Amino acid sequence: MGIRTGQQYLDALNAMTPEIYANGEKITGGVADHPLFRDSARSFARLFDAQHDPAHHDDVTFASPTTGEAVNASFLIPRTEADLARRRAAFTAWTGYSHGFLGRSGDYMNSALTALASADSFFAKADPVYGERIGAYYELARENDWLATHTLIPPQVNRSASASRQAGGRVTAHVADQTGDGVVIRGARLLATCGPIADELLVFPSTVLRGTPEDAPYSFAFAIPNDAPGLKYYCRAPLYHGGSAFDEPLASRFEEMDAVVVFDDVLVPHDRVFMLGHPELCNAWFTETGAGALMTHQVVTRTLAKTEFYLGLASEIADTIGISQFQHITEDLAELINYTEIERALLRAAEADGQLSEDGVFLPRWDTLNAARNWYPRKVSQRLPEIIRTFSASGLMALPSEADFARAVADHNADLDTYLQATNGTAERRARLFKLAADASVSGFAGRESLYEYFFFGDPVRMAGAQVNGYDREPARARVRALLSEEL
Amino acid sequence: MGIRTGQQYLDALNAMTPEIYANGEKITGGVADHPLFRDSARSFARLFDAQHDPAHHDDVTFASPTTGEAVNASFLIPRTEADLARRRAAFTAWTGYSHGFLGRSGDYMNSALTALASADSFFAKADPVYGERIGAYYELARENDWLATHTLIPPQVNRSASASRQAGGRVTAHVADQTGDGVVIRGARLLATCGPIADELLVFPSTVLRGTPEDAPYSFAFAIPNDAPGLKYYCRAPLYHGGSAFDEPLASRFEEMDAVVVFDDVLVPHDRVFMLGHPELCNAWFTETGAGALMTHQVVTRTLAKTEFYLGLASEIADTIGISQFQHITEDLAELINYTEIERALLRAAEADGQLSEDGVFLPRWDTLNAARNWYPRKVSQRLPEIIRTFSASGLMALPSEADFARAVADHNADLDTYLQATNGTAERRARLFKLAADASVSGFAGRESLYEYFFFGDPVRMAGAQVNGYDREPARARVRALLSEEL
Amino acid sequence: MGIRTGQQYLDALNAMTPEIYANGEKITGGVADHPLFRDSARSFARLFDAQHDPAHHDDVTFASPTTGEAVNASFLIPRTEADLARRRAAFTAWTGYSHGFLGRSGDYMNSALTALASADSFFAKADPVYGERIGAYYELARENDWLATHTLIPPQVNRSASASRQAGGRVTAHVADQTGDGVVIRGARLLATCGPIADELLVFPSTVLRGTPEDAPYSFAFAIPNDAPGLKYYCRAPLYHGGSAFDEPLASRFEEMDAVVVFDDVLVPHDRVFMLGHPELCNAWFTETGAGALMTHQVVTRTLAKTEFYLGLASEIADTIGISQFQHITEDLAELINYTEIERALLRAAEADGQLSEDGVFLPRWDTLNAARNWYPRKVSQRLPEIIRTFSASGLMALPSEADFARAVADHNADLDTYLQATNGTAERRARLFKLAADASVSGFAGRESLYEYFFFGDPVRMAGAQVNGYDREPARARVRALLSEEL
Amino acid sequence: MGIRTGQQYLDALNAMTPEIYANGEKITGGVADHPLFRDSARSFARLFDAQHDPAHHDDVTFASPTTGEAVNASFLIPRTEADLARRRAAFTAWTGYSHGFLGRSGDYMNSALTALASADSFFAKADPVYGERIGAYYELARENDWLATHTLIPPQVNRSASASRQAGGRVTAHVADQTGDGVVIRGARLLATCGPIADELLVFPSTVLRGTPEDAPYSFAFAIPNDAPGLKYYCRAPLYHGGSAFDEPLASRFEEMDAVVVFDDVLVPHDRVFMLGHPELCNAWFTETGAGALMTHQVVTRTLAKTEFYLGLASEIADTIGISQFQHITEDLAELINYTEIERALLRAAEADGQLSEDGVFLPRWDTLNAARNWYPRKVSQRLPEIIRTFSASGLMALPSEADFARAVADHNADLDTYLQATNGTAERRARLFKLAADASVSGFAGRESLYEYFFFGDPVRMAGAQVNGYDREPARARVRALLSEEL
Repeated sequence: MGIRTGQQYLDALNAMTPEIYANGEKITGGVADHPLFRDSARSFARLFDAQHDPAHHDDVTFASPTTGEAVNASFLIPRTEADLARRRAAFTAWTGYSHGFLGRSGDYMNSALTALASADSFFAKADPVYGERIGAYYELARENDWLATHTLIPPQVNRSASASRQAGGRVTAHVADQTGDGVVIRGARLLATCGPIADELLVFPSTVLRGTPEDAPYSFAFAIPNDAPGLKYYCRAPLYHGGSAFDEPLASRFEEMDAVVVFDDVLVPHDRVFMLGHPELCNAWFTETGAGALMTHQVVTRTLAKTEFYLGLASEIADTIGISQFQHITEDLAELINYTEIERALLRAAEADGQLSEDGVFLPRWDTLNAARNWYPRKVSQRLPEIIRTFSASGLMALPSEADFARAVADHNADLDTYLQATNGTAERRARLFKLAADASVSGFAGRESLYEYFFFGDPVRMAGAQVNGYDREPARARVRALLSEEL
Repeated sequence: MGIRTGQQYLDALNAMTPEIYANGEKITGGVADHPLFRDSARSFARLFDAQHDPAHHDDVTFASPTTGEAVNASFLIPRTEADLARRRAAFTAWTGYSHGFLGRSGDYMNSALTALASADSFFAKADPVYGERIGAYYELARENDWLATHTLIPPQVNRSASASRQAGGRVTAHVADQTGDGVVIRGARLLATCGPIADELLVFPSTVLRGTPEDAPYSFAFAIPNDAPGLKYYCRAPLYHGGSAFDEPLASRFEEMDAVVVFDDVLVPHDRVFMLGHPELCNAWFTETGAGALMTHQVVTRTLAKTEFYLGLASEIADTIGISQFQHITEDLAELINYTEIERALLRAAEADGQLSEDGVFLPRWDTLNAARNWYPRKVSQRLPEIIRTFSASGLMALPSEADFARAVADHNADLDTYLQATNGTAERRARLFKLAADASVSGFAGRESLYEYFFFGDPVRMAGAQVNGYDREPARARVRALLSEEL
Repeated sequence: MGIRTGQQYLDALNAMTPEIYANGEKITGGVADHPLFRDSARSFARLFDAQHDPAHHDDVTFASPTTGEAVNASFLIPRTEADLARRRAAFTAWTGYSHGFLGRSGDYMNSALTALASADSFFAKADPVYGERIGAYYELARENDWLATHTLIPPQVNRSASASRQAGGRVTAHVADQTGDGVVIRGARLLATCGPIADELLVFPSTVLRGTPEDAPYSFAFAIPNDAPGLKYYCRAPLYHGGSAFDEPLASRFEEMDAVVVFDDVLVPHDRVFMLGHPELCNAWFTETGAGALMTHQVVTRTLAKTEFYLGLASEIADTIGISQFQHITEDLAELINYTEIERALLRAAEADGQLSEDGVFLPRWDTLNAARNWYPRKVSQRLPEIIRTFSASGLMALPSEADFARAVADHNADLDTYLQATNGTAERRARLFKLAADASVSGFAGRESLYEYFFFGDPVRMAGAQVNGYDREPARARVRALLSEEL
Repeated sequence: MGIRTGQQYLDALNAMTPEIYANGEKITGGVADHPLFRDSARSFARLFDAQHDPAHHDDVTFASPTTGEAVNASFLIPRTEADLARRRAAFTAWTGYSHGFLGRSGDYMNSALTALASADSFFAKADPVYGERIGAYYELARENDWLATHTLIPPQVNRSASASRQAGGRVTAHVADQTGDGVVIRGARLLATCGPIADELLVFPSTVLRGTPEDAPYSFAFAIPNDAPGLKYYCRAPLYHGGSAFDEPLASRFEEMDAVVVFDDVLVPHDRVFMLGHPELCNAWFTETGAGALMTHQVVTRTLAKTEFYLGLASEIADTIGISQFQHITEDLAELINYTEIERALLRAAEADGQLSEDGVFLPRWDTLNAARNWYPRKVSQRLPEIIRTFSASGLMALPSEADFARAVADHNADLDTYLQATNGTAERRARLFKLAADASVSGFAGRESLYEYFFFGDPVRMAGAQVNGYDREPARARVRALLSEEL
């Protein structure tokens, strides 16, 4: 069928019967129409619609190799540098709607599936059938234009113990049984971001396995429909409070609900099991298949858009209240420019220095992208809201709501217009801008973004360890030994 | 009458008729019972009640010099170091309820009034009558146990221009007329924190006057009751969303509403005018009267309590999820300990090195407190939520609401109990703790705290300039010149 | 004649008669043999020799378009992306000797000349003759394989005043007279790095001109031989103390002397004057000609090599004393990896996104390189020595000299061998490594490097201002306005 | 005999015969006259002389309880807060000479001895004789006005292994034998700062013992004269290069040589053995005896002086070259003021909140001082030179030597005078100031200071762990639990 429209996506969502708990209720009726999910579902719908929009169609889609119909470009298996640029153009087109605030737009998991479907040599180390199954699943996902979420980490019972040692090993999702029909999963995982409004759930290997036999029951990869029997989503308290686009400009559009996923003896049919056991291969799942590379390629495109957004936001604020000429404002703007350009360069260089994998996939250079995903959470993500706060100051708290402005009009009361005007803008325009600044720097939505970006790929401390282990420092060390051994 | 009870405070609040706009409505009926203000008013009421609680009475009160009745200890004019310790004990007792999250508890403005009421030599530079008036007002405030808010800075129309040059000079509150009855004020000021639930509004000199004749109309100090005709409060959108103490543990208790203050030709009677004109004295208002010293003494006591709270919170989290042994966790805990001890030392040293003013008031050492108030916003306040986020990680987002737990009980559903348990606590206990962590690090309440503390005393960049100008660097410079000139 | 050998360079140096003051003496005799300059001259000689070394010849040279003889590849006018890669390969080959510690290796100024010689449309704005002159000079430099230094900034009399207002305008180098033979220059400039051992001095426009008529006498660009009459170099105190390569491994090789340049009525012949007057063009000298782009392309290649060197050094230290498994060590290593990869990406992306100039030169993308040169000084350069200190700790101070080791051998004293051994190395090997660490993190040489890199392109604060002014933020701002104006 | 003069100290030094290796030679002849040690010995001599200077005598000395003669005030056993103030006044008087650059002025180790001599209850846990011995040694030190150095940490063979596991346990100083005369020590320790010019060497317990029986041979405390047979000092390469006070203003005065200490079967007589075995008591040596408190009290007084020196230096530079009005300069000055005031407050508060120990010693509050010594190395010490570099910029490298100025005078050459003048000072005055700036921010001396302060009390990472373990976080945690359990 190829690319869907937004309406098709929303209809499909309403036709599903997932088990979702949120805000003290068990969700019944169509998810896409539920107040908690309606607005964010609509934002995802816009992404589906963009596929049909002539302005984006060519960037966002390509012709399916099986049907010739248009399918999303994030499913394009890259064979050349140009293919990577093609994929990036698709990601970028969508950021024109999300500005980087949708961390789980479909292209993210699609990128993983695209790499995995082509990683035959990896799966052959366990059993080629896994490669065949995920290949078939990839085609289904591509042709049905599914939106998939995923869930990765074990519950946080005791962060100093492994899954098998947490509360007797029963808490973390694990293989409880194997039957003729498939594998039975029991236990929980955190966090399925935008889980409630997805079509499918991917459950890939948690990367914190120790690779010991003890960890075998926790070693697997599979996919299930979002309304598979026994699958339950427990949502966090919502961060969008139902306000207008004026009052909650980001939360109203981009609230991606996070949910704890509980597997209450969920049967996963064999053809949806992509790995079982093999802790050591599970630990290599993202790096050796190229999934990490293609996913990070999408992520850096996304964070570049987000950093640009903050650069634009800071610039608009500076102009609106007349602070552009202050030295510390200029220095902060320059800092945002630097981050923007660095992310752009990392992306571009990863493509330019990409290489063909053993399986003939042209992957962006991993060391480059790995640096990007280790650097951004620590050095950039936390600075973005900080800079907006510094620019906006008390302006973020002198902010009546849209209803207050409406009432003032009704009352013929000019106070707000007079006293909240800006040097370069009316009170209404300025309030709209500062509401956006608030949602980007001090609101609950902003706080969740800070957390989300910081931990996007996992605990930065553990990630640093993995990065050092996986990086070839020998050329750098050889420099030092060369100098030490040379005669003057 | 001396100290009030919480109920007396709430009753008085309900008896007033302030003009307040919030959330699209004009508030009518009793403020203390309005859903937007009820909970925070109740938190302030607890502070009033604590004055009567035998556990705190002796710390929090002293005998009025005029009536002998107990009045709040923040009104005690310090004559000795012991008096400063006395005042600190009172501030500290109240932080047992607020944990530093109430930035406008009554002792803050009371401290200003106490200093001003004793600063005869300062007021004599303009006209001794100002000193007499503020002395009388101080007595009224003390004996009636009023809660006062204040409002300080001009609207943010154009931050690169002075008040007199903003939108024709009409926007910033200014003297519009003088009549036989008093002074007529027109224009606006930002931000009256907890304005809607105060008894009185103090309008003190904005410290960004240039001291030129052009600034004379913006130069004044006065007090008015909160329901003075023509006085209007325009509230920001609320950050407390009506959740339970479980779901919004800090916002439900400590949401201090911020409001833009509009003076629509407010008549201030002469006896409430404490300064008029004299831009140069207005600029010296806080430093030369000792008001800055006594206010900062209160503030540092408050931020110490808050830093302790974060140290405690981080410690509880670390234990609950078993991360105490990780090196970076230990380093962050040590950092919090250092900040706690530094603030404690600054407070203690300011007292120990205090000095009698010209007017016989024993003021804490200003250079010490000035360092405290310049250092904390930049180096401490932004780190506190950051550390909590680092400790809590995804735990902050795997958080169902209280209603979800209740429903689970009703449904006999053990999922949450099982999967959200902690190594040292039940799921419910852990959720309660992490909700608190969320409200202290990622919620809208937390975001507003970050902003509020960073800008508490004004723009840190400007403050640094003032600090350097006011500090005697000669002894330090003499060291350098001595070394340069000495023979080896 | 094309590429010179090291010996030819040294001979030429000895044949010159520059006026140099250093360490209380006026240098007489051959500069290349003087103890103060001998060692660094020899390091530069190695770079010349590398041009003839078969291992590097193809990377470092290309065939002169006029003679067909090999000339240095930094003179290659880039017409394609491949040419940029070619230039980078040449820069990189030389960093195999300098490891980024020679800030003024010949390829730096050669890059400037190469761009300027091709910037006809820029010079046409003043007078095409300037373009012709610098084109001719470029050919001379290329064919004679000259080593040029340059000098850029006015003396630091009063950093808050412009050149024309410093001490009556007499201090900063300016046009004192114009004669039929040329232009007479009087005054001083800072700092000619490695001036004493260069063949030529380039004096390019100081970038802090205000572009006013008052600044015309300070607006010029020219070149003179290093022993032009009236030209004087006043050297700073040396940082290399004459120790062996063991004791001063970096200073002995890479001490680039910095000198104040005094022009005591130096006559610059007309054909060496490349610009006169035109303050506004002088201010655009580096950006509009492409000189900035080609120079920065060389600089980032150099700082990449240097960052790699520190990564290698840190890794060697960690292994030698057994600290690799500590978490904070791993985090620092990851940080160095990130910086290395970011610099590599900036370089690569600037090439991949380069564009043809109006004059047909393929210039690397300026926004990318501008980010690189604004980011590195602030965020990377100061961290490098800091990390080495953290790794090495007291090991940097438990370091006898080479003579002590020699004496121990002579005395059959095994103390040093026993007590300074490392877990992965003998005492001698470890001392050699830690001496290098000391010269890279705590010695006077290391201190000068910190300063040099931080201020390489000028005051970072001013640079940030220029960067913001020159950057197109409109696309970023358009993002924000699009979101604000869209319907939900 | 009581306080010595500088000459007496120098004469005693020359009369000793320590075994010192430095710069490839074995030192022979009087240490006090050797070029490597002469200048720093003279700086220490000035401290001795200051004891007799009427301007300081009363601050620096007190009457010996045994002889009534004046002895150094750092030997005063504090019984009251006033005694602590007395001790601080003495430390402060000496910083008028050292400005905090002498890390091993006598008052440092004297403070340790003073606490130990009074810690009877601690020594009683092992054997009261230890307390008696150290009491007697303290008296000798006090009455003879000895200068003691000490040495604390094991060689850095393998930082991930304990002493007993380093190279077979033979490298670290340990008990090799016990005889009727005493204990025989073999092995090495790092680093004895200013060891070569001390009278005595104190060898106190290394704080990195694990408290296991395996560590018993490494568990001891003793003192020996600096020329005890078998004791050898291996000096690091010198950082003072023999320049004048103009050229090396700090290194010439304050170079404290660091030396590896080798014990080649050194016999320590029984009465100089203050502890033997008891690893658990050795680990508590500094905290439980009050030695840590009195030493840190001295150290914070010293670092306060140093921070003030940098504040003065930065201020002098700013004025000299006219940069005081730049915003980032102001912010850096404010930062230095904050650090100065924080250190002053920590010191003052530690005294004001001091308490009597079990043994009747009035000790400054440990939590306060512990925060000071954990905070300063990380947050302050590395910023000091950084700020000086930012202020001075290229001025640090445009610096001819004193000899160059002398030669210019001889040659009647006015170039330096003209071109290096400052807006507020002659070229000579400015050069003198900037030479000081260089020695405080970029020289080898400055580099060693950065390292020294960072690691003064040990590895900051380990120290953080110890601090957290020793700190009572229960009151902070109780705050959190109180809030969680209270009803709204």
